[in-house]
Amino acid sequence: MKILLKDAAILYWDVTLKVIQNGYVAIEDNLIKSVGSVSDLHLLEWQPDRVLSLPGRAIMPGLVNTHNHAAMSLLRGYSDDVPLQTWLERDIFPAEDCMTPEDVYWGSLAAILEMQKSGTTTFADMYFYMDKTAEAVLESGMRASLAKGMIGLGPNTQEYLLGSREFFDTYHLAGHGRIQVMLGPHALYTCPPDFLNEVIDLASELGTGIHIHVSETLKEVEDSYRQFNKSPVKVLEELGLFEHQVLAAHTVHVDDSDQKILVEKQVGIAHNPVSNLKLASGVAPIASLLAQGGLVSLGTDGAASTNTLDLFAEMKLAAWLQKNYTGDASAINSEQILRMATIDGAKVLGFDRVGNIAAGFKADLIVIDLNQAHLTPHHNLASLLAYSVQGKDVETVIIDGNIVVENGKSTRIDEKRVVAEMLERGLRIKRDATEGMTEQRKQL
Amino acid sequence: MKILLKDAAILYWDVTLKVIQNGYVAIEDNLIKSVGSVSDLHLLEWQPDRVLSLPGRAIMPGLVNTHNHAAMSLLRGYSDDVPLQTWLERDIFPAEDCMTPEDVYWGSLAAILEMQKSGTTTFADMYFYMDKTAEAVLESGMRASLAKGMIGLGPNTQEYLLGSREFFDTYHLAGHGRIQVMLGPHALYTCPPDFLNEVIDLASELGTGIHIHVSETLKEVEDSYRQFNKSPVKVLEELGLFEHQVLAAHTVHVDDSDQKILVEKQVGIAHNPVSNLKLASGVAPIASLLAQGGLVSLGTDGAASTNTLDLFAEMKLAAWLQKNYTGDASAINSEQILRMATIDGAKVLGFDRVGNIAAGFKADLIVIDLNQAHLTPHHNLASLLAYSVQGKDVETVIIDGNIVVENGKSTRIDEKRVVAEMLERGLRIKRDATEGMTEQRKQL
Repeated sequence: MKILLKDAAILYWDVTLKVIQNGYVAIEDNLIKSVGSVSDLHLLEWQPDRVLSLPGRAIMPGLVNTHNHAAMSLLRGYSDDVPLQTWLERDIFPAEDCMTPEDVYWGSLAAILEMQKSGTTTFADMYFYMDKTAEAVLESGMRASLAKGMIGLGPNTQEYLLGSREFFDTYHLAGHGRIQVMLGPHALYTCPPDFLNEVIDLASELGTGIHIHVSETLKEVEDSYRQFNKSPVKVLEELGLFEHQVLAAHTVHVDDSDQKILVEKQVGIAHNPVSNLKLASGVAPIASLLAQGGLVSLGTDGAASTNTLDLFAEMKLAAWLQKNYTGDASAINSEQILRMATIDGAKVLGFDRVGNIAAGFKADLIVIDLNQAHLTPHHNLASLLAYSVQGKDVETVIIDGNIVVENGKSTRIDEKRVVAEMLERGLRIKRDATEGMTEQRKQL
Repeated sequence: MKILLKDAAILYWDVTLKVIQNGYVAIEDNLIKSVGSVSDLHLLEWQPDRVLSLPGRAIMPGLVNTHNHAAMSLLRGYSDDVPLQTWLERDIFPAEDCMTPEDVYWGSLAAILEMQKSGTTTFADMYFYMDKTAEAVLESGMRASLAKGMIGLGPNTQEYLLGSREFFDTYHLAGHGRIQVMLGPHALYTCPPDFLNEVIDLASELGTGIHIHVSETLKEVEDSYRQFNKSPVKVLEELGLFEHQVLAAHTVHVDDSDQKILVEKQVGIAHNPVSNLKLASGVAPIASLLAQGGLVSLGTDGAASTNTLDLFAEMKLAAWLQKNYTGDASAINSEQILRMATIDGAKVLGFDRVGNIAAGFKADLIVIDLNQAHLTPHHNLASLLAYSVQGKDVETVIIDGNIVVENGKSTRIDEKRVVAEMLERGLRIKRDATEGMTEQRKQL
């Protein structure tokens, strides 16, 4: 399919952020064929199948959400306003115990629908029943980096490794490369060094990356000092983990020496500001990491700890927090925020030629109508996109050359059905988790 | 006009938050006539002119934004990512110098449109050319507490007082009571005690309240200690300001003793979390004030320092910040957040019978479609409304018994015209402010 988008402001990455005021994007199959000014369109000898004239709109690279547990959308609002341990142990774990593979499919599909409609074209996930999430990704036209969550404690560690290997063999590069598979050891405190060494070996063998939670809470860091006499970052470095492509989620409690390691090893960081505040985990030193040349991206974490998967909300919060955290309103700017949410997100996930609007890149882009009162005047396009747009301002979404959302409606997913499934499954999970689990589940 | 809304979940305030699952709201003229369960609807002997059946929707009290400078929407994105003093002195003040009364009218109308479409039915404003904002309020069907900004330094102090008195005489209770007028001395650092004494006298005479910025930045507090040897809150208390109804914006830097005064005097606080972070001012101790019984509400501040006027975004941030700031994820909950954004906001502004859905209250309410993927499942309605809804989820808005937004479209304001005016005026202000002002404007 050949699609021509024209008459819009095109925002793209050169060395810095650039804007073509009255531009076009030509898409052929899953790639961007060419980008330019509408005045040069006559030079393009090319016949599109479809033309979208988009005056008053901005076209920007699709957003990349680098840390999610998509199926947790089923637990949105299930437990709020309680301390982390209560949240996890009293509420979330028992509810997750009641989730079936079909629940994970529908929860993932609902999350993908929410993400696509709010401008996210690629996400990274770590959870269980990951083949069900993969199924939802394939059907929905989404791009994703998927990792089966692995726990390195208890009797099932070899099964986890085997499961990850099988998942890799089945899904890596599926959907014409839309899915990439990473390994997902949950965290240092649930995956001891011996197990992580096996994960590293497997990553080497498969030639893939590792998605892991790192230094999310102060307790995690204190426990690491108690057990290893060093920080989680230092332990992981010494294990050689960072010689591989690593996606480190959170990195809230990282001291200067940890930061130096993360920057030097170009560890991909998924910053999840909403989740970190909501669970009172803290504020990650993102401005500092960026100033040192760190590779930072944005994630939402699961909807149970974020309540929305709108990456535009995370962008705003990431900016506001760093300004206040550093006491310097100039500590981070809208261009850095947009970079974290697009091209640097794709880089963190190791997707090749994703996250920019440029010839040869994957055709992942979103269209936003700027002719709305809350997006005027047009003093500064980067500021509007980073600080004023909300998820629902996204009008049209293209992933891998396919229009998956048009005029705010999904072209791929039956939203009515998703809503009905979510309501019913949400009720059932709550009932099962609170009114007594089955004998089988109690024994888990 | 008699309007019946039915088949929706109705969220209202009793002592605590209550929900009628399948409820109705009957509106007659500008008041709520009755609220109840649809199963009791046959008991209501009453013939509506219009019936809205709203299955799958939530109806909640309209939101109250207690601190804004509406016309600053013209400066949205005009200056970001710079320190407060640069922002104000290099960018904002010169741009404001180029704003005409007509600019203030259109900027206010754009802000009101944005607020109404995102669920805000009442706002408090402090700015110049306030008669133009009042005009926009009257036309748009909005409810507002308006204050002409006053500066107590320089040769024009008496003109400010006179202007406020005239504004009060002209607009207080205009629009069938939709407008209430307060006095707006800008802040202690721009209004010395002698001037504030005159303001207090005028407030007594007119029987109205006072809207003032209090302890927004650390510098302001330090300056107060230098000049008065006490905090701004203490100075204002000793002046007797708090014997009147006061709307104190920000209160970021308030120590235990300040907090005690604010609580004891039931000073109405407008908490502006986005603005406070963006300008690196700090985090107001809201959870602490609430725990002591303080009266706290939510505001956006002007769009130049917030970039959106979406009060749903402020609700989320207010919650997330307090949790992290206190290190306790249970420090504040969704019910407290919704209370701040509705009934307590109305209380802070001194609007009688506003902010609840109950018989005899003003018919100010909003309708939200919950049957969307990002608002499922329905584990907890308060959590969904406080933490998951975004401004654009608001479908229908009723103010003072009039439908001002229906299915996401304004029934009162020509959005196309507003957008065109904002684009043109934004460009002109920028040009005038940066390329040199006209002689006439220089003399203003």
